[in-house]
Amino acid sequence: MWTLAEIADHIGGDVVGDRDYVVNSVATLQSAKADQISFLSNTKYRKYLAETSAGAVIVSPSLSGNVPSNAIISHDPYVAYAKIALLLNPVVIKKTGIHSSVSIDENCQIDPSVTINAQSVIGAGVILEKNVVIGPGCVLLDDVRVGENTRLVANVTLCDGVSIGQRGLIHPGVVIGADGFGIANDKGKWIKVPQVGSVKIGNDVEIGANTTIDRGAIDDTTIGDGVKLDNQIQIGHNTIIGEHTVIAGCVGIAGSTTIGKNCAIGGGAGLGGHLEIADGVQLTGMTMVTKSITQSGSYSSGIPAEPTQVWHKNVIRYRQLEKLSERVKQIESQQK
Amino acid sequence: MWTLAEIADHIGGDVVGDRDYVVNSVATLQSAKADQISFLSNTKYRKYLAETSAGAVIVSPSLSGNVPSNAIISHDPYVAYAKIALLLNPVVIKKTGIHSSVSIDENCQIDPSVTINAQSVIGAGVILEKNVVIGPGCVLLDDVRVGENTRLVANVTLCDGVSIGQRGLIHPGVVIGADGFGIANDKGKWIKVPQVGSVKIGNDVEIGANTTIDRGAIDDTTIGDGVKLDNQIQIGHNTIIGEHTVIAGCVGIAGSTTIGKNCAIGGGAGLGGHLEIADGVQLTGMTMVTKSITQSGSYSSGIPAEPTQVWHKNVIRYRQLEKLSERVKQIESQQK
Amino acid sequence: MWTLAEIADHIGGDVVGDRDYVVNSVATLQSAKADQISFLSNTKYRKYLAETSAGAVIVSPSLSGNVPSNAIISHDPYVAYAKIALLLNPVVIKKTGIHSSVSIDENCQIDPSVTINAQSVIGAGVILEKNVVIGPGCVLLDDVRVGENTRLVANVTLCDGVSIGQRGLIHPGVVIGADGFGIANDKGKWIKVPQVGSVKIGNDVEIGANTTIDRGAIDDTTIGDGVKLDNQIQIGHNTIIGEHTVIAGCVGIAGSTTIGKNCAIGGGAGLGGHLEIADGVQLTGMTMVTKSITQSGSYSSGIPAEPTQVWHKNVIRYRQLEKLSERVKQIESQQK
Repeated sequence: MWTLAEIADHIGGDVVGDRDYVVNSVATLQSAKADQISFLSNTKYRKYLAETSAGAVIVSPSLSGNVPSNAIISHDPYVAYAKIALLLNPVVIKKTGIHSSVSIDENCQIDPSVTINAQSVIGAGVILEKNVVIGPGCVLLDDVRVGENTRLVANVTLCDGVSIGQRGLIHPGVVIGADGFGIANDKGKWIKVPQVGSVKIGNDVEIGANTTIDRGAIDDTTIGDGVKLDNQIQIGHNTIIGEHTVIAGCVGIAGSTTIGKNCAIGGGAGLGGHLEIADGVQLTGMTMVTKSITQSGSYSSGIPAEPTQVWHKNVIRYRQLEKLSERVKQIESQQK
Repeated sequence: MWTLAEIADHIGGDVVGDRDYVVNSVATLQSAKADQISFLSNTKYRKYLAETSAGAVIVSPSLSGNVPSNAIISHDPYVAYAKIALLLNPVVIKKTGIHSSVSIDENCQIDPSVTINAQSVIGAGVILEKNVVIGPGCVLLDDVRVGENTRLVANVTLCDGVSIGQRGLIHPGVVIGADGFGIANDKGKWIKVPQVGSVKIGNDVEIGANTTIDRGAIDDTTIGDGVKLDNQIQIGHNTIIGEHTVIAGCVGIAGSTTIGKNCAIGGGAGLGGHLEIADGVQLTGMTMVTKSITQSGSYSSGIPAEPTQVWHKNVIRYRQLEKLSERVKQIESQQK
Repeated sequence: MWTLAEIADHIGGDVVGDRDYVVNSVATLQSAKADQISFLSNTKYRKYLAETSAGAVIVSPSLSGNVPSNAIISHDPYVAYAKIALLLNPVVIKKTGIHSSVSIDENCQIDPSVTINAQSVIGAGVILEKNVVIGPGCVLLDDVRVGENTRLVANVTLCDGVSIGQRGLIHPGVVIGADGFGIANDKGKWIKVPQVGSVKIGNDVEIGANTTIDRGAIDDTTIGDGVKLDNQIQIGHNTIIGEHTVIAGCVGIAGSTTIGKNCAIGGGAGLGGHLEIADGVQLTGMTMVTKSITQSGSYSSGIPAEPTQVWHKNVIRYRQLEKLSERVKQIESQQK
């Protein structure tokens, strides 16, 4: 239970209304009750503000007069909400030490503060720093290193030699350090190219469920500090991702591509191999990138959905573009 | 071993031929032997009917005269086949109780009829109803609830507080309830937006291998009764999927999108966030949806494959569309 | 430690320079030191050759004069590199027998040479041939068969009856033999079509992390000898993949599609169901295949990224193609 004064103080905002009003939890504008706090950031939800039953709403200064109850004023209501939601929902990790079912190989360095949950497997030479939490069912193969305060939620697989920084959060089903897709065609048969690099993950990295990050072919695959990855992303060998870049779900990145800092890659985008993507590039969802991008800015591809009958016609017209262009040329030549 | 009379009776169809003919198993028209029953539903396989060695074939009334052996007549041969295949291949689950290697935390309510296979981990406060089967290697974090007769095949992860209805079937590698991709940019660094909602899955839901369903940011992510999900689907936080909607493999759905009832979404489709998709919408494979769809019906996007050389030319023409349009305008103005 | 003479002998190449020069490991041209060997295959990296500090470089005959240090000459430097990298980085598998935490059901045939790591679960009737290695956290359901020298790295799930050939390498998170997506609409509700086929994987197959291969509906899903699959690929029920075909990450293949031999499918491509793809077909990344391909050769689709503002305009022009075509027709008719 927090008063609005305490909450506003926590985020450096101002209260409009009853500073002693108490809220217990967060809610959306549509579902909030009198003991809850909500927020308005996406203008799509502006229409719900007048009718909300929330005890308080976090809004930008321009909307301070439009909140039917109490308001907390912030120049960035979404960031303010994030901080308040964390204040009201602190992460509670049960520190239970090492479960009796855990299998630990030789020569590991495991800090006494580490928690390892049931059925996990720790290979030889693994280093787990202070306050690391290994959830149930995880497999860490040999020589993995996990930095302070990093948590693997459950069923995560870290292959040999993978290194993860501090304060990381790795969701279930993630596989880091599996072999990259290195094959060479030897007279009609594909032979394996040994993948002798590893994966280095920076600090403050979050990795979503079932995402895969392959180990490098020779050098390491590298994920910079503060990178946030959503679910089901595939990152090929020797990819380098710059600091504070965020990638939405289902993105595929082929090998040896370098992505800059502070990029934002939309869901389902695909990036070819051996490309260079500049700092500050945004890709909208499902964009197909086949060439390097040297300038920051927003890039897109793909044609959004149409009724199937219209689509059929447009695809036919698309396929006739060459002919259409020829016809226009023909007309132009006759006009001269 | 079943007679055709018994089988026809089971599905409410009619036998043409020997009612006492016995079949043991199902097969395709191409591979069936005399003790097997096959079916014809997709017209692509019509050509195999005359030559089949099947002892019996399930067909629609119009084809009753074209079966070289015995026939079972049904107005929907595929549905009839499904029911007959289940009759001939009943699901057999070994009820083996709780394996000695299973780790179970405190305050769980586990019905005596429940099976939990080896190496699974059950968190605190978990509720497993009658006849639930937890396959090997599953992890259920705290306060998960699984309804009657639901089965987790193997290596499934259910995160804190996830609730699954009755008669569900969850395939290996599925992750339900991992954090949604909620981040807010606080002066150049991304901070985490706590994901305090959960996931509610209805009754009779099937979820394919390695599919991920994120927990809600505030409210719950919700999957309706009778929904069928294929493999490697990504469902973002606060997505709502209506009853009896089916989604094929590799579909990605961004957060806060609502999909209606009785929709059918083709493989590889991508749906943006904060959209509303009406009931009865069909999307063909790889369709890219960036706006809400308010009318039922079929929608598509994407241009199918062409020989690479032709594709190169068409892409160039596409990029010149603006110019081509200008040229046509120019011609038109000269004609006036 | 190997001399260049020994290495050249191993791959059937020639040394230019000091035959007794010793190298210990592989490296890229950019990062190599004097005790390392590098290679040049992709012309993109030609620019690094003159400046490399590598003790030796594997190059094609035409570049033998351009290596600043020692050279190994090969007609296919990438294949030569692969073989040399394997020579210098031999795969070392710890043969540790069966870990005490492993759960093994009845009637299994497990060769004494087999290794099964911690927390794995082996169902009834499983057959593991000579030198099979089952990494930690794997689940093999009943009647699985794994051929000689095949290795499951970790957290792999093989469902009932799945069969894998010899010398296979299966990466973490792979699920083979989950139910195909077989559903039939019975008066508005979807009922399950039993998936009674299995999955047969040939010899020398590599399968990347989190890839899923569904069991057949009636007949088996079949993966040919020498097939190499990258990460996060979805292979639908009754798909058949011909020998020595390679598939990059994030590809989705719907059910009952047959892919020929020696195909190469680029990342993120999608293939519809019930198609036939000829031998020797290449698909570039993100290609959408909706019809069978009867001729070998390269096929493509998709329009690569453009700046978002340009993309917006081109999408509008695309949607006006029908009208543009009409206008050109109109002009042509007036010219006659």
